[in-house]
Amino acid sequence: MATQIVIDDPDDDRVDDFRDLKRADRRPDRPGGKGLVIAEGTIVVRRLLASPYPVRALLGVGRRIEELRDDLADVACPAYVASADVMATVVGFHLNRGVLAVADRVPRLSVTELAASARTIAVLEGVGDHENIGALFRNAAALDVDGVVLGAGCSDPLYRRSVRVSMGHVLRVPFATAEEWPKALTTLRDNGFRVAALTPRWNAVSLHEVQPTEGERIAVLLGAEGDGLTDAAIEAADVAVRIPMADGVDSLNVATAGAIAFYELAHRVS
Amino acid sequence: MATQIVIDDPDDDRVDDFRDLKRADRRPDRPGGKGLVIAEGTIVVRRLLASPYPVRALLGVGRRIEELRDDLADVACPAYVASADVMATVVGFHLNRGVLAVADRVPRLSVTELAASARTIAVLEGVGDHENIGALFRNAAALDVDGVVLGAGCSDPLYRRSVRVSMGHVLRVPFATAEEWPKALTTLRDNGFRVAALTPRWNAVSLHEVQPTEGERIAVLLGAEGDGLTDAAIEAADVAVRIPMADGVDSLNVATAGAIAFYELAHRVS
Repeated sequence: MATQIVIDDPDDDRVDDFRDLKRADRRPDRPGGKGLVIAEGTIVVRRLLASPYPVRALLGVGRRIEELRDDLADVACPAYVASADVMATVVGFHLNRGVLAVADRVPRLSVTELAASARTIAVLEGVGDHENIGALFRNAAALDVDGVVLGAGCSDPLYRRSVRVSMGHVLRVPFATAEEWPKALTTLRDNGFRVAALTPRWNAVSLHEVQPTEGERIAVLLGAEGDGLTDAAIEAADVAVRIPMADGVDSLNVATAGAIAFYELAHRVS
Repeated sequence: MATQIVIDDPDDDRVDDFRDLKRADRRPDRPGGKGLVIAEGTIVVRRLLASPYPVRALLGVGRRIEELRDDLADVACPAYVASADVMATVVGFHLNRGVLAVADRVPRLSVTELAASARTIAVLEGVGDHENIGALFRNAAALDVDGVVLGAGCSDPLYRRSVRVSMGHVLRVPFATAEEWPKALTTLRDNGFRVAALTPRWNAVSLHEVQPTEGERIAVLLGAEGDGLTDAAIEAADVAVRIPMADGVDSLNVATAGAIAFYELAHRVS
């Protein structure tokens, strides 16, 4: 059971992991950033507790820590209990959700490791927007995508805002960062994946006409809206696929396009 | 051709329509609100100019007004040109997009009027979030939905943030506000629509198994995530449909769920 420790003094150094989050978390993966994984709110904290990320501590108002009692039964880390005001002073802003948890990162998977156990993979190129990354993970989790490969130009899925927008699903869906791009697509093909690149190009195949065959492994390749996928990425794919769109509409949000493709191409759950 | 008028003085009353937007636009449809439709950025301003909403005026930096020259050829309203600083003072915040347009509202369609010309309709219940409303209209426009019915508890799609998130598609996709709810669903059925209610209920039919027959008219009924549709709304529908979801995932964002349903159920464009 996590030990509950009351924090009255916002300067208490035991809660330093939670301090001044807006600044400390700006680039968590860069020098000066702490590199911690931060979960906000009971739902996301629960997903962090159930994830492979080693939880260092929780900080919450009494009522929220109480709600998490069952989830904390087998957890050894401290659970700091503070008033909403003390929390706000530590964190640097008022926190509606009333509870936070921090965890360390874990070594990332390679693309080959990720491919070994997955049937459906989402592959992202140039998705720099933290909310889009978060939404993509949420949609991947809901629609039976087993893993995500981050290609060139993607932002960190463990950034605080991405964790929140994903509803904590970045902590559940395994991901790998491509070391070489777009060579990672060849790695996926070598591992038996059909790589389907989503693009608005008129000569791409309509998504309605692409059906995974029984047991087929599919990688759905998605680029940022606006620029879209690079030519090199599309050429490294097996097939270019488009979502049929009405005249006069340029594009869908990348996470929404991803959701439609996952719905159509992921191994179907009934 | 719109007349270009240079504005040097932020207090000039000719730009009062654009003044203090954050406050004036908080509830545009309520007493004290001006009830104007506001478009931001060249893409959305273009959609407003091409819409049925009568444009009152534009306000922009010179470069943006110049970009819109062709779109303004047949427009009689004034185009106020100002520096970025003067614009910021008028509007009350710095505007990255550099151009705004305001228009008057037009009389709303009734559900019967909307139904007369549509094949696929999205029907919303309890969707109060402005960004979700905007995203739903964007997805509806992209995926060939011909109109939107706003049921009980929906917010105003012409709110500034909804217009922006929709990329201006709230100005293109016609919508009607249901006077009686859920009776509007009966009206749709009387007009030949099959009403498909999207719900995570386990005993609903999988979306993969629902296919519109040739020429069939479909109304996709969507509720806010969290609470979901009311029982009364589900009972007034013809069929309850669910998007198959992986274990441990509660829901999709309502606009994302809508996109998947529109993709599957709207009259197919190729």
